[in-house]
Amino acid sequence: MPDPTVNRRPGRGPRAAEAIFDTTLRHLAERGYARLTIEAVAQESGVNKTTIYRWWPSKPALLRAALIHARVLDIDIPDTGSLRGDLIALTEQITRLLTDGRTEPVARAMTAGTGLPDDELAALTRDFFADRFSREQPVFIRAAARGELPADTDPMLLLDLIAGAVWMRVLLRREPVPPDFARDVVDAVLPR
Amino acid sequence: MPDPTVNRRPGRGPRAAEAIFDTTLRHLAERGYARLTIEAVAQESGVNKTTIYRWWPSKPALLRAALIHARVLDIDIPDTGSLRGDLIALTEQITRLLTDGRTEPVARAMTAGTGLPDDELAALTRDFFADRFSREQPVFIRAAARGELPADTDPMLLLDLIAGAVWMRVLLRREPVPPDFARDVVDAVLPR
Repeated sequence: MPDPTVNRRPGRGPRAAEAIFDTTLRHLAERGYARLTIEAVAQESGVNKTTIYRWWPSKPALLRAALIHARVLDIDIPDTGSLRGDLIALTEQITRLLTDGRTEPVARAMTAGTGLPDDELAALTRDFFADRFSREQPVFIRAAARGELPADTDPMLLLDLIAGAVWMRVLLRREPVPPDFARDVVDAVLPR
Repeated sequence: MPDPTVNRRPGRGPRAAEAIFDTTLRHLAERGYARLTIEAVAQESGVNKTTIYRWWPSKPALLRAALIHARVLDIDIPDTGSLRGDLIALTEQITRLLTDGRTEPVARAMTAGTGLPDDELAALTRDFFADRFSREQPVFIRAAARGELPADTDPMLLLDLIAGAVWMRVLLRREPVPPDFARDVVDAVLPR
């Protein structure tokens, strides 16, 4: 159990959590999972390793928390007044995460999972994307309330198409992202 | 220059090319790029390493040839008589490549590129997907000839959406692929 006398943000970890998460993701990107160690993360984050172990008792637990809670991987859930506007804003944020020099290597390392036992990698990526998906729900709830979402629309399929297109274009095809890419992607998948 | 007296399939490499490609991809998946060696590939494929060097003078050249020419990563370009039918067949093949136990680890290793200098990885993935894209062109040429393809349709965007959705669902989100996934993906992106 965490020590209740430690000053902290509830549920998010110790005060140094942000520094710990940033170091964890940077080490993951630079060294790969196999050479990621709680000791090195603690040292570089300026905390005692027992502080990390108190909150996250294992390397997978620490990485999971960093992927889900690090501000650098955060997305703002848009509320532009239309489903189209919200999805374009989401697509632009996904594009930024997959092209920014700080976050692109993290996305690549997470996909690869090199050095992770396959079941741990599966659990990590599943948890990460399930958390994203649940955070994106308000976009679809508001769209349904506005009557913009046909009853047979599958939000997960829409998001797989949108996020997948960015992933393909940027990380796999390695082609440049045209200025109107977000708009074109969204217009291709929204019911007309 | 390759020795012209060696019996070979023109342009594809020596007679043992298929075994060499298979071993290359398996070693990539099992060991990662950094520990992939031409020596080990030669030994396990039953050829002399000079045979490999004669055709592919470097590790990136060998891996590039394996990714582009290995039968295990091949796709049949469908010709079902409709754009919808062709795209569903393509989507099913992409799903198979990303779920089959022999090819899924290759796809993952290629995405990750762990151990590859970033410019070599970029060149490899760019070449691989450019080759795929050029092979898929007949689907769109035939669709245009049948009048099925609106003039403003971007085939690369369609393929990014389709392949990206499979990639997201299978390798990233780690959710099961429903039986009608290929059909649903294609119906979501085809102009109605």
